[in-house]
Amino acid sequence: MKQKVKILLFGTGAVGSFYAGKLSQAGALVSVVARSDYSVVKNSGIKIKSIYGDFHFIPHRVLKSGADYNDVPDFIIVATKVLPEIDICDLIKDTVKSGSSIVLLQNGIDIEKGIAMAFPGNEIISALAFVCVSRTEYGFVDHQDYGRIVLGSYPSGISSKVIILEELFRESGLPVESTNDVIAARWRKLLWNAPFNPLSVICNGADTGELIQHNDIRKLSEAIMKEIIIISKADGHPLDESLIRKNVEDTEKMTPYKTSMLLDYENKRPMEVEAILGNTLTLAGKYGINTPHLETLYALLSIINKKNLS
Amino acid sequence: MKQKVKILLFGTGAVGSFYAGKLSQAGALVSVVARSDYSVVKNSGIKIKSIYGDFHFIPHRVLKSGADYNDVPDFIIVATKVLPEIDICDLIKDTVKSGSSIVLLQNGIDIEKGIAMAFPGNEIISALAFVCVSRTEYGFVDHQDYGRIVLGSYPSGISSKVIILEELFRESGLPVESTNDVIAARWRKLLWNAPFNPLSVICNGADTGELIQHNDIRKLSEAIMKEIIIISKADGHPLDESLIRKNVEDTEKMTPYKTSMLLDYENKRPMEVEAILGNTLTLAGKYGINTPHLETLYALLSIINKKNLS
Repeated sequence: MKQKVKILLFGTGAVGSFYAGKLSQAGALVSVVARSDYSVVKNSGIKIKSIYGDFHFIPHRVLKSGADYNDVPDFIIVATKVLPEIDICDLIKDTVKSGSSIVLLQNGIDIEKGIAMAFPGNEIISALAFVCVSRTEYGFVDHQDYGRIVLGSYPSGISSKVIILEELFRESGLPVESTNDVIAARWRKLLWNAPFNPLSVICNGADTGELIQHNDIRKLSEAIMKEIIIISKADGHPLDESLIRKNVEDTEKMTPYKTSMLLDYENKRPMEVEAILGNTLTLAGKYGINTPHLETLYALLSIINKKNLS
Repeated sequence: MKQKVKILLFGTGAVGSFYAGKLSQAGALVSVVARSDYSVVKNSGIKIKSIYGDFHFIPHRVLKSGADYNDVPDFIIVATKVLPEIDICDLIKDTVKSGSSIVLLQNGIDIEKGIAMAFPGNEIISALAFVCVSRTEYGFVDHQDYGRIVLGSYPSGISSKVIILEELFRESGLPVESTNDVIAARWRKLLWNAPFNPLSVICNGADTGELIQHNDIRKLSEAIMKEIIIISKADGHPLDESLIRKNVEDTEKMTPYKTSMLLDYENKRPMEVEAILGNTLTLAGKYGINTPHLETLYALLSIINKKNLS
């Protein structure tokens, strides 16, 4: 009998629960580290309402801390927010064993470097979720739209472990894609996130439809995307200029929705200001690129985030 | 006996009521056109609580419309907001007679041109109020701080009518100054207003103290001021670069307060987005100047203003 793939999830928010649940459906032995929702998940698992079919995700084990795992995970999936106050290396350090691959299923750009340096003997897999999913309460996740996942070895390549993960996702019925250049995929996702996530918050809680209909905001989002494209080129993962127009047109066609950053803001949760904008500006600075629009958004979002949490 | 100076005020908001009241104290015959507050002002005048001493401003006449004035005003003072929905030429047209000077006691840059073109035979006086004053209810004005007024002939010079007005203000006890280059004075005031008024609104209702303490916002305000200085130079009224530092230091020292734009926002009143930012960007466009920070602020403030009024 083929041995089951052992997976340990950190971060039982909407994205982590959904994708880990799908891997469990595909036959992996998925354990989870839960914090505030520990007793709910321990007692009842996670009920997932999904456009692909509802299911009940009962983790193999539910732990309070990585230190309780006492096993060798094939994959450690990190699906926490990327925030200055979350030390991911410290969070996972007791569970990283020889042969464990660390999967970063998170937002933002250039988020892998610190983890890769802290665990030089372990493979880092970078993953991007294109999904509309929210945790309605502890132990309940609502998957409303999309679901595609893109993954690749960091900084590049498609390892055998990436292929194992890809096949599990495919078996679970999700649209999945592995890529040789996962950093380029991050830039591609950032091209939309960098304007529209911050703007939805700064413009007083505007949904994507309101933003794109407003002429000056559409032009501003284009100017921001232009800056991202220039940085992506300097970073060696050039995005094509035509993607600006495509992003605008796609946004015009979308059913208007509130971005994840706006949901965080409205729920008084910290926003991923650094992962989305701060890291981008650090790279721009490194390459000597002038980014006045991104800098303005960063300054505004930083103070709004601070005020929102105080 | 010297004939009394006849003044007609449009706009019985805080600024208009305060300065017209002071002119009345100095002996001018000040009539006012009141709208929503007509019956209150007609019956009880305007009670002004002021750091220079409380006083009761009883207008010579209180009118519902300029058409009722039937006299020749020496000065028509326009103290309304500068908003696309207020047609000032139409508002004052019945009262502009030969020899009437039109005094624009308003915020913003390049706000005089349209009025000057509509009334080519009349002198335009441009005036800037540096004052903390608010209308607490109809017929009640609270003057909390400052009070200086700067005035000059538009586009330049100090006419005899400017001197008459200056002397009346001085008699009333206000700090007053006439200037040969009132457009330069407008640029100087805009240098503070263009960053801090919009930022106070966009940053979720931050007072001046919160704004200036936040490092990224302080840097952003400096970048915005830099753009204003470049436009002022192209416009022939060059501001000195050292004013950026002075504005920052002054703002650090100020008792923190909410900007007038923020008060408008909080009270769901239209904000002077065009007078402060829109006209500035029009001039920048005319001179071919790149203004990414101002453009970003303009786009954000436009949509926030629209959402706030809807």
